[in-house]
Amino acid sequence: MKYVLLFSGGLDSTTALYWLKSLGHEVRCLSIDYGQRHRKELSAAKKIAARVNAPFHILDLSAARFLLSGSSQTSELEVPEGHYTEESMKLTIVPNRNMIMLSMAIGWAINLGYGGVAYAAHNGDHAIYPDCRKEFIEAMQTSAKLCDWHSIDILAPFVDFSKSEIVKLGAELKVPFELTWSCYKGEDLHCGKCGTCVERKEAFDLSQISDPTFYEIPGKISVSL
Amino acid sequence: MKYVLLFSGGLDSTTALYWLKSLGHEVRCLSIDYGQRHRKELSAAKKIAARVNAPFHILDLSAARFLLSGSSQTSELEVPEGHYTEESMKLTIVPNRNMIMLSMAIGWAINLGYGGVAYAAHNGDHAIYPDCRKEFIEAMQTSAKLCDWHSIDILAPFVDFSKSEIVKLGAELKVPFELTWSCYKGEDLHCGKCGTCVERKEAFDLSQISDPTFYEIPGKISVSL
Repeated sequence: MKYVLLFSGGLDSTTALYWLKSLGHEVRCLSIDYGQRHRKELSAAKKIAARVNAPFHILDLSAARFLLSGSSQTSELEVPEGHYTEESMKLTIVPNRNMIMLSMAIGWAINLGYGGVAYAAHNGDHAIYPDCRKEFIEAMQTSAKLCDWHSIDILAPFVDFSKSEIVKLGAELKVPFELTWSCYKGEDLHCGKCGTCVERKEAFDLSQISDPTFYEIPGKISVSL
Repeated sequence: MKYVLLFSGGLDSTTALYWLKSLGHEVRCLSIDYGQRHRKELSAAKKIAARVNAPFHILDLSAARFLLSGSSQTSELEVPEGHYTEESMKLTIVPNRNMIMLSMAIGWAINLGYGGVAYAAHNGDHAIYPDCRKEFIEAMQTSAKLCDWHSIDILAPFVDFSKSEIVKLGAELKVPFELTWSCYKGEDLHCGKCGTCVERKEAFDLSQISDPTFYEIPGKISVSL
């Protein structure tokens, strides 16, 4: 089957890309630049897509910043450090991000005559991101069946996976984890302190897979500086 | 209540704006520039919003043209003339347009702390535009309730109205029809020949409301040239 994959260049969507390819699907990768701080993930995404010969496109939605400015990913607010708390994660949320990204991917899939759209929501996101939950995905699936004559499937293969289970699957699929980018700060190295870095480290720890990521260690001058 | 209204500056969404205001709602208007031919509607929209003191914003989504290029509204295809046939209307469809526009409006409404999003789908659109049908609106309503902690209502007040019923309501609400813009060609005057012009004329005829629109008459040099 042919899929448009919402592809950030992070650990989850890279594993989704490798998984779809391992099943023989044809995949086009769509990265969305919505004015986020961690634009570094976009260049990671480009490299990874090239590695598996998947066509890769960036859609520039930074013009929508004025609509979406309530988040530290798109505004001047400080990125919170430490393990995510409910409050600190709410600060990193772009309102209605997944519906916006899915709607674009669905439009493109219709245009291409593709059968589906995939995205890598996982169960570690559920409590924090309402638009990563099963109920939301099902409602969007219904919407995607009705928005056009050409019906589109929404595939969220990791909705029941924890992040460490994604790492385990990624290791089996030989995902080049060292090329993936998670950190919300988007500096030279993964900061190791923001919520998404803490989550990334924890996922490698829990899955007992060796973590190839270089993290900046506070108080020590990192090798890349 | 406070609403974000998807506002094109056409006859339908202008009537929706006047209707919402007549009920005492606070309304912000969102026009989407997705690279359509009839950008003239955007300047009509701006004038009309100013007339009722509704804040008005244009979101430039023209960067998404590469996703949406299968339509005569966003590509170099000829705009079909004459009354809409199923085939000619399909040519004027931007794939997944309403989901894309609603998702943006919902994101904005969440950010503003507004209660709802309104759009002016009507029953004349049903057969042609799948994303104007009740089933689609209901699915999007469910999605909009689940995409965030802050639940958003989707209001489509004209879903059971014909276009001539919208004209009747607009006349009661003293909508300045002469300021509204429908024509897909986006030239100096309404062409009077494309599907949306034919539909507009018909709606005034059927409602027996005087049509203040200047149409370009083929073979005659129009006063504005």
